[in-house]
Amino acid sequence: MNLKNFITFEGGECSGKTSIINSVKALFDEKGIDYISTREPGGIKIAEQIRNIILDINNTEMTSETETLLYAAARMQHLHERVIPALNSGKVVLCDRFLDSSLAYQGYARGIGMDNVLKANSFALDKLPDLTIFIDVTPDVALKRLSGREKADRLDLEAMDFHQKVYEGYHKVLEMYPDRIVRIDGNKPLEEVTKDCIKAILDYLKIS
Amino acid sequence: MNLKNFITFEGGECSGKTSIINSVKALFDEKGIDYISTREPGGIKIAEQIRNIILDINNTEMTSETETLLYAAARMQHLHERVIPALNSGKVVLCDRFLDSSLAYQGYARGIGMDNVLKANSFALDKLPDLTIFIDVTPDVALKRLSGREKADRLDLEAMDFHQKVYEGYHKVLEMYPDRIVRIDGNKPLEEVTKDCIKAILDYLKIS
Repeated sequence: MNLKNFITFEGGECSGKTSIINSVKALFDEKGIDYISTREPGGIKIAEQIRNIILDINNTEMTSETETLLYAAARMQHLHERVIPALNSGKVVLCDRFLDSSLAYQGYARGIGMDNVLKANSFALDKLPDLTIFIDVTPDVALKRLSGREKADRLDLEAMDFHQKVYEGYHKVLEMYPDRIVRIDGNKPLEEVTKDCIKAILDYLKIS
Repeated sequence: MNLKNFITFEGGECSGKTSIINSVKALFDEKGIDYISTREPGGIKIAEQIRNIILDINNTEMTSETETLLYAAARMQHLHERVIPALNSGKVVLCDRFLDSSLAYQGYARGIGMDNVLKANSFALDKLPDLTIFIDVTPDVALKRLSGREKADRLDLEAMDFHQKVYEGYHKVLEMYPDRIVRIDGNKPLEEVTKDCIKAILDYLKIS
């Protein structure tokens, strides 16, 4: 098994990410693969405290630069307390969202800038995932799944604009890290998408 | 008067910084110069919340990278809520410590690395002070002032090592920013040091 086993999952809303991670966990259990499954801030006390400042509805004065730095700080703490120790003990780490989410959502969709997100996260740049599964759902499909209807209303169309930006943001990230990120077509039925994700992971881990 | 009036004060322990800033304020009051005097986190709610996480004695797991990012986040919020609005309204800003303190104390003396501190503070790099008054006190003089005695004991000598590192750190910072930082000999009696600082500030502001 590869010694570099930091695997992240990325994708917009309605990509089926949670369900897919659960399937991977079930498979790992079955195969006896030693792993942890996590996401930021992941119950790490300091990371949770930081997240609380970000999410505090009274903190309306917070600048996007402060917010970006706080997310980066919480990320580093989660990384050092949970991810790195698990990797060092030989476990596979499955992480639901990581730096790429900040790049797609904050850097691109919210307009903070990819460069600014990278600057704030410079400590994480030598601790990037070894494999990232990007579940690529086009905005029209995401919207149909979100609304549960075939025809979108006005509010759906507003949301559409944001979905579109996140979609574009993820594709920029894909261009930035083509070697690390595997794009999986997420428009297909969930069963097929799950199968494709599992294949990509097992191929990477060189497990049949 | 110059439009760029962000003035910071730097120096190790026992540099007389607080007393000197008070003298500058008194002079500005006398001359009718519009100014604010501040220091991080400066009562800025979000910056104080961040500082509380850093100082929480239960947060023993905090990594130096997280700490550096949190200081940077608090700095940006203080900068945006207090410093920049005052500068924009034409005021002189007197700030007790800024990025240079992080570089000397955290970057150099505590060994986090100048580069790491600069990376975490990259958002602040285009908002550097226009003038920095560095009150340079040699470690032996600082130690005598701190202990109030001529002869140091064992604990003083341990502290000496840290004073020495901060001293070296500040001199590295001085090499990094020779145009912005004015070094004032802080070993002289306080009255003379104060006079030298005031002269440097009035020269910069082109006020007689």
